[in-house]
Amino acid sequence: MNAPAQPTACVMIIGNEILSGKTQDANLQFFGIELAKLGIKLVEARVVRDDHEMIVAQLNECRVKYTYVFTTGGIGPTHDDITAECIARAFGVPLELNANAVERLRRGRGELNEARLKMARVPAGASLIDNPISNAPGFRIGNVFVVAGIPAIARAMFHASAGELTKGAEILSAAVDVYAREGDLAASLEQIATAHPEVEIGSYPFAREGRFGASLVVRGTDAELVQRVIEEITRAMTELGGRPVRTL
Amino acid sequence: MNAPAQPTACVMIIGNEILSGKTQDANLQFFGIELAKLGIKLVEARVVRDDHEMIVAQLNECRVKYTYVFTTGGIGPTHDDITAECIARAFGVPLELNANAVERLRRGRGELNEARLKMARVPAGASLIDNPISNAPGFRIGNVFVVAGIPAIARAMFHASAGELTKGAEILSAAVDVYAREGDLAASLEQIATAHPEVEIGSYPFAREGRFGASLVVRGTDAELVQRVIEEITRAMTELGGRPVRTL
Repeated sequence: MNAPAQPTACVMIIGNEILSGKTQDANLQFFGIELAKLGIKLVEARVVRDDHEMIVAQLNECRVKYTYVFTTGGIGPTHDDITAECIARAFGVPLELNANAVERLRRGRGELNEARLKMARVPAGASLIDNPISNAPGFRIGNVFVVAGIPAIARAMFHASAGELTKGAEILSAAVDVYAREGDLAASLEQIATAHPEVEIGSYPFAREGRFGASLVVRGTDAELVQRVIEEITRAMTELGGRPVRTL
Repeated sequence: MNAPAQPTACVMIIGNEILSGKTQDANLQFFGIELAKLGIKLVEARVVRDDHEMIVAQLNECRVKYTYVFTTGGIGPTHDDITAECIARAFGVPLELNANAVERLRRGRGELNEARLKMARVPAGASLIDNPISNAPGFRIGNVFVVAGIPAIARAMFHASAGELTKGAEILSAAVDVYAREGDLAASLEQIATAHPEVEIGSYPFAREGRFGASLVVRGTDAELVQRVIEEITRAMTELGGRPVRTL
């Protein structure tokens, strides 16, 4: 009997400001954590410029590869907000003024001018995603969820969409910090990883107050197995003299 | 007379920990800022899992599209560090034990065991990139620069490689913060953007102490033009009552 297929996802971060270094992305980590809770595997992320050709090409590539694509950014009222029109082009449908979106914008502050009306133009066939913070909605078309770049709004829109997602088994993790150099623990860790291909084991080096160590992380959907493997790692690291410390 | 072509770049961030949400990427913004100083346009970034097929396919796609590719992560001694072997596969060359890299590792702490020797295996034809922090080198092969994921080491390796890069005209920026809603300033800003296609103009909304505003950014290689456009924006925003404040 096969386990049900795990849904997959890609996050597409749209915006020159992330690539110019002006802005530090603050959404990818959130998506990683939340998607894991829903049992959806975040397989890749892409950061792309405000460029029509590029957004259309990459979206069309990713939307056939993954169960879901989440885009962030580019849905505001200014000239550099081109996400909605690119997504319409990628799907080969027109942009339409959405009456429900107009109604939401009317409740917001400021004159409902041409620039603000732009935020009510969504690809034909899209459904709106609630924005509890500033009224201008996100939207969903097919397997693509289009949310704002502003972190608070991106989070709210993701939570507003979560009910529509097909979930998998929650991806759980356990971690142990070890005060040993990776070069000294690698062989032992590799043995354990080879013995347990059903879980993913990562080693992430750190230096704290001049002491070197590594955070060893086990991830998988079987809670009992994740615990068993982290205990096995903890024992092995104790034998190596690595003074393991369990973390969250 | 054409201006010399601007070099382009892609950053490929390799590591499950970034996609699981365990770790916040701390390298992309650095690359964005530093590449702009060198006049190299960072066109996209990709975050990929520790997965052979995926790394090989994406690297081969990106290395023909851009002047340079910078990869971060996956060059340590543990089982989940697979970057070097993936890059060798992408280039169709064997991994080789590099005598110079072995010598560097010998200067480091800890026994030169099999795991540490792994860090001396680089694709045939690669040249080493200095690591002033922990001895294990990065490497360059063709137009691909392979650096560590640990931010301090990624930075040092980038600076160690910068001399090898073909530079373009520095990408300069100027910014002004405006206390107005984007929906109210969009029309005026779009007029200015349309009049100056040689520069890139971005609008990034913010909320500070309950007041809404937008950071308006002009980027381009012509210092005089960037200044002229930011002044034009500042005047237009003053007329709108947006109380513009120049920022760095």
